Amino acid sequence: MNFQARKRRAAAAAKTAGLDGLLLTHLPDVRYLCGFTGSNAVLAMAGGRAVLFTDGRYTAQAKAEAVGTQIVIANKPALPLACEWLVAKGVARCGFDAAHTTVAALEAMRKAVPAKQRRSMFVASESFVARLREVKDTDEIAKIRKAALLGCQLFDEMLGYLRPGLAETAVAAELEYAARLAGAEAMSFETIVASGERSALPHGRASTAKLPRRGFVTMDFGVVLDGYMSDMTRTVHLGKALPGEREVYDAVLEAQEAAVAAVAPGVTAGDVDEAARSVLRRVGLDKFFTHSTGHGVGLEIHEGPRLAAKQTQPLKAGMVITIEPGVYMPGKFGLRIEDMVLVTASGGEVLTPSVKAWIEL
Amino acid sequence: MNFQARKRRAAAAAKTAGLDGLLLTHLPDVRYLCGFTGSNAVLAMAGGRAVLFTDGRYTAQAKAEAVGTQIVIANKPALPLACEWLVAKGVARCGFDAAHTTVAALEAMRKAVPAKQRRSMFVASESFVARLREVKDTDEIAKIRKAALLGCQLFDEMLGYLRPGLAETAVAAELEYAARLAGAEAMSFETIVASGERSALPHGRASTAKLPRRGFVTMDFGVVLDGYMSDMTRTVHLGKALPGEREVYDAVLEAQEAAVAAVAPGVTAGDVDEAARSVLRRVGLDKFFTHSTGHGVGLEIHEGPRLAAKQTQPLKAGMVITIEPGVYMPGKFGLRIEDMVLVTASGGEVLTPSVKAWIEL
Repeated sequence: MNFQARKRRAAAAAKTAGLDGLLLTHLPDVRYLCGFTGSNAVLAMAGGRAVLFTDGRYTAQAKAEAVGTQIVIANKPALPLACEWLVAKGVARCGFDAAHTTVAALEAMRKAVPAKQRRSMFVASESFVARLREVKDTDEIAKIRKAALLGCQLFDEMLGYLRPGLAETAVAAELEYAARLAGAEAMSFETIVASGERSALPHGRASTAKLPRRGFVTMDFGVVLDGYMSDMTRTVHLGKALPGEREVYDAVLEAQEAAVAAVAPGVTAGDVDEAARSVLRRVGLDKFFTHSTGHGVGLEIHEGPRLAAKQTQPLKAGMVITIEPGVYMPGKFGLRIEDMVLVTASGGEVLTPSVKAWIEL
Repeated sequence: MNFQARKRRAAAAAKTAGLDGLLLTHLPDVRYLCGFTGSNAVLAMAGGRAVLFTDGRYTAQAKAEAVGTQIVIANKPALPLACEWLVAKGVARCGFDAAHTTVAALEAMRKAVPAKQRRSMFVASESFVARLREVKDTDEIAKIRKAALLGCQLFDEMLGYLRPGLAETAVAAELEYAARLAGAEAMSFETIVASGERSALPHGRASTAKLPRRGFVTMDFGVVLDGYMSDMTRTVHLGKALPGEREVYDAVLEAQEAAVAAVAPGVTAGDVDEAARSVLRRVGLDKFFTHSTGHGVGLEIHEGPRLAAKQTQPLKAGMVITIEPGVYMPGKFGLRIEDMVLVTASGGEVLTPSVKAWIEL
């Protein structure tokens, strides 16, 4: 990880926006810029320098992780200390991320600076670091690739495990255990196992419901490896398909593949969404596709860009996004198919090559 | 759960503060007031009514969970819609929780109301709901008790599993698998397994390090059952103690028990902290106790009250807190012992009765 280069790029973006300082409190941003992974961290940047403020729980860890960044271990809250440092560095206009700074934190920041600077010092700025993080560098892509492949391996293992009568929570337990044994630091989010009628819930966290003898099982899960997250969904069918199920599956698969095929640098996020949505519209299923097509993924499970209707943001090479259309018919069934896709120089590369064809177990 | 009573109490607290409306966006607060557990939710309250705003992914779930609360399934962002509803209800001063509302969200809220109300409509208020949530009702205590006991059961199981050479991540995997099979919805936080020299890291997430032949293993973990979290820490010793280790263990245990014994309604949070800290001070170990003594726990892993030095907040019957002093000697070893304690009418009841005496495996 070239943390120095990342910090330089963040500082340059701030400078272009007319800011002479940056205050970073969103933990994934701090980690991205300096490598520190602790739960209490404020990074202040000004005049070509960066200082990480944390507390005594993290003395050893900060030293080991935030190499090349000055570290202050504080006995009092890190946020006002960081503000005092910015004042001492002569900063007049300090950018902060309005999307991740609470109203209370801003109040505390203002209280920490001299009265005459209180109203002018902190400027709600674009999320510079979030924007930088959208385009992954080589190191990050390698880590994401590993996490995504581990996800695929786990899915393959689960195919030999799924059977009617198992509780959804048991499926999640098995999956998460295998993930841990394979070295995952954590799951990216609460594992979704939604079976039978529950498959019609787009966000059906694993429940005590039992897998049916006949019906869909949707598994949406991800692992964290070295801080980077994977995210994938597959839907398989237990027993013989009931009338209509196979047709809906094929439509979702066609929509998903159309969106994957649409991925390329310069294409807008909205166009990729439309590629999936139009397939479902053609067969009258678009009204059951009640969420957006995907999102960026990296140090966080939901990052930019957002792949939703009418989003004009163009994709760039190096972005890693999910493509995950679904159809949910309340009281009946639902399904979703999701890949992670790397935007390449010429198109998109699927990072989660697990089988997507109809599977009947 | 008596959601109607909870909503009435929140509304009454707001009224006392001179507010005629409340806007709630912090998900655990929304869940507490109306039962909804989805990831997109805004609850608006005014004139004796409450409306939950969410999106199409949660149509079925909202209906099932938020019984007794009006539900609006929105095709556009929930937050401005909720603000428009508050305006339509004639609200003039609407409280919002500054600690959980971002600067960007406040900006969006202001944009959603007529220009003449923009500056006056939203009032940063005390976190009424967080304050209500500090004192648990009977239902909540029953749920927390179950989660805490499951934690103890898991710890007991782990005693038969720990042995030198196991990776810390394997220990975490085993613990989390057992938790899942026992019905846990999730872990309360990333499981901490810190062994050997790593035991000196207060927040040592499980790593690939192997358990030593001789040394401490600290396990800090919790489970979520029905939304409520447990949190406990035990430190055991593999092999025979090295000089000094037993003495430090006994001092931490004495500090922990002193703090537990200090718990009672009316006692301040700072006094409980001091009860632990003074024991360690007496033996010159207080400088290695680098964090606070504990925190409230419930729907979130960290809630009020905060048990730290000089905190003047008095404990109340019905609060559930952690008592978790620790000593961390960088480069050598460390340990922590943590219980959950219910503040009763006359004292404190330990909810995590697992053995705390010295264990040598």
